[in-house]
Amino acid sequence: MALESWNNGAAKAAIVDFVARVTKEGGAQHVPFSERVAVFDNDGTLWCEQPIQVQIFFLIDRAKELAGKDPTLKERPAFRALLEQDFGALLANGKQGAMELLAATHAGMSEEEFEATARSWFASARHPKFGRLFKQCTYRPQVELLGYLRDNGFKTYIVSGGGVDLMRAFAEEAYGIAREQVIGSSMKLRFEIKDGRPQLMKVGELGSFDDREVKPANIGLHIGRRPLLAFGNSDGDLAMMRYTKGGAGPRLALLLHHDDHEREFAYDREFKLSPLSEALDKAVDHDITVVSMRRDWKVIFD
Amino acid sequence: MALESWNNGAAKAAIVDFVARVTKEGGAQHVPFSERVAVFDNDGTLWCEQPIQVQIFFLIDRAKELAGKDPTLKERPAFRALLEQDFGALLANGKQGAMELLAATHAGMSEEEFEATARSWFASARHPKFGRLFKQCTYRPQVELLGYLRDNGFKTYIVSGGGVDLMRAFAEEAYGIAREQVIGSSMKLRFEIKDGRPQLMKVGELGSFDDREVKPANIGLHIGRRPLLAFGNSDGDLAMMRYTKGGAGPRLALLLHHDDHEREFAYDREFKLSPLSEALDKAVDHDITVVSMRRDWKVIFD
Repeated sequence: MALESWNNGAAKAAIVDFVARVTKEGGAQHVPFSERVAVFDNDGTLWCEQPIQVQIFFLIDRAKELAGKDPTLKERPAFRALLEQDFGALLANGKQGAMELLAATHAGMSEEEFEATARSWFASARHPKFGRLFKQCTYRPQVELLGYLRDNGFKTYIVSGGGVDLMRAFAEEAYGIAREQVIGSSMKLRFEIKDGRPQLMKVGELGSFDDREVKPANIGLHIGRRPLLAFGNSDGDLAMMRYTKGGAGPRLALLLHHDDHEREFAYDREFKLSPLSEALDKAVDHDITVVSMRRDWKVIFD
Repeated sequence: MALESWNNGAAKAAIVDFVARVTKEGGAQHVPFSERVAVFDNDGTLWCEQPIQVQIFFLIDRAKELAGKDPTLKERPAFRALLEQDFGALLANGKQGAMELLAATHAGMSEEEFEATARSWFASARHPKFGRLFKQCTYRPQVELLGYLRDNGFKTYIVSGGGVDLMRAFAEEAYGIAREQVIGSSMKLRFEIKDGRPQLMKVGELGSFDDREVKPANIGLHIGRRPLLAFGNSDGDLAMMRYTKGGAGPRLALLLHHDDHEREFAYDREFKLSPLSEALDKAVDHDITVVSMRRDWKVIFD
């Protein structure tokens, strides 16, 4: 049965009703296949982002590995703050510190080398609270929803602040979302012939930080269509949800509220790394359907 | 019959043989569906780019329209050079002049407004030599090839120096290539609420000039897979072809040579706007299959 991990309630009803309307042949709100675009945030929407985003766990492990080879790195403020998980100090270091870390951990190698590094990390890295592999910290109701949408002719995309290459290393296996349907933050790529082989090198310069107003801009660049459905969980997703709702005809915007301390985490506006306040406060104004993890989901993980 | 507008010869045989090898179930060179990515340049590869690219005809018509409303524009060097089709002067104006023209003609409006402008132009703008609508100046053998590849499980992409939004306004109808599979040069997009409606504005700042080494970089960003097949017609496509050929396993790179003055145009290294010299001279070294318009194509247009 479709959406079997969703409890019957307003959220599930809104989804099923919406999909029925846009797919009904000859119906007043029928939407052709080509325009059935659904965009999902990743961190906190498709998988767990607490106590810190998976990307940051990866960053810490990569920084540890690099500092093991070159101990002088530990003296650099951004590395020290990261290794000590002092996020106050890390944020105080500002953009320059963040870029230094990204350049050291996510660049200076080819796309293929990064992919191998990421896959190897995903094969063993585990969540500190749940003890399961990070790639198994995806939400089962959402994986069902992605499949349900695809069964109804939707193309499903990730539009996330996470690094595009890290997501591409697991999204196909975890969500059934192909690499070309993953949009994220990115470092610039440079084509070069290295050791006689033409390849793409990741260079230490930010290409795009895919958050807030940049999300709809990247949807325009990569997809070129206004989505029919958007699903997020933080203020970083509000622009994407509003862009979606701003189109003509039927549109659905969904906001996951983490209110389930028992089974996962309960948080919203106090989570510094990705707060939820405006999107929650204005959900009614913007016709955004709030999904309660506690009430709407029968189970969280597989 | 597939590829009926292609003459039997080395080029057609190379294509058919390649597709047979990568699609043969259980074959040594079988490639799964997800990796069957084919990238095509547009100008001069999928449609006519002479005497100047269609994008430049569009630019001239847009500039005329704007100058009709504001005659002082004619006094600006870049506008004057464009309106007089003095491409020497236009190129001498350099990047700043080009950006001024792009900002005036391709920006300051929403994505949807630009789309409407482009569609309206395509509905009536005609090629000066052939008298047919520009959107009917596509090459029939290539439209057949795109369909043949899709029938064999390939995803077909455009990767062109042309503006992404102009191409998206006709690519689905002309080539069967969906908007999200069109990669091109782009102006930056900015999300804003205008007249109460959330939308994407095209702003007067270059996002990406999708030519030469930038083509493989954009393939990495948008698709995240190394193509299996690349088709181009100029030195601007050489990096994309070399990136394609640099992957493991079977890969095919094709180069269209315009050597047909009778039916279309004959040109290569002397075409200033997009020369073909290095890719032709080094085709053997790089294992690039040269396609002769004169010998390999039975017909050019529909």
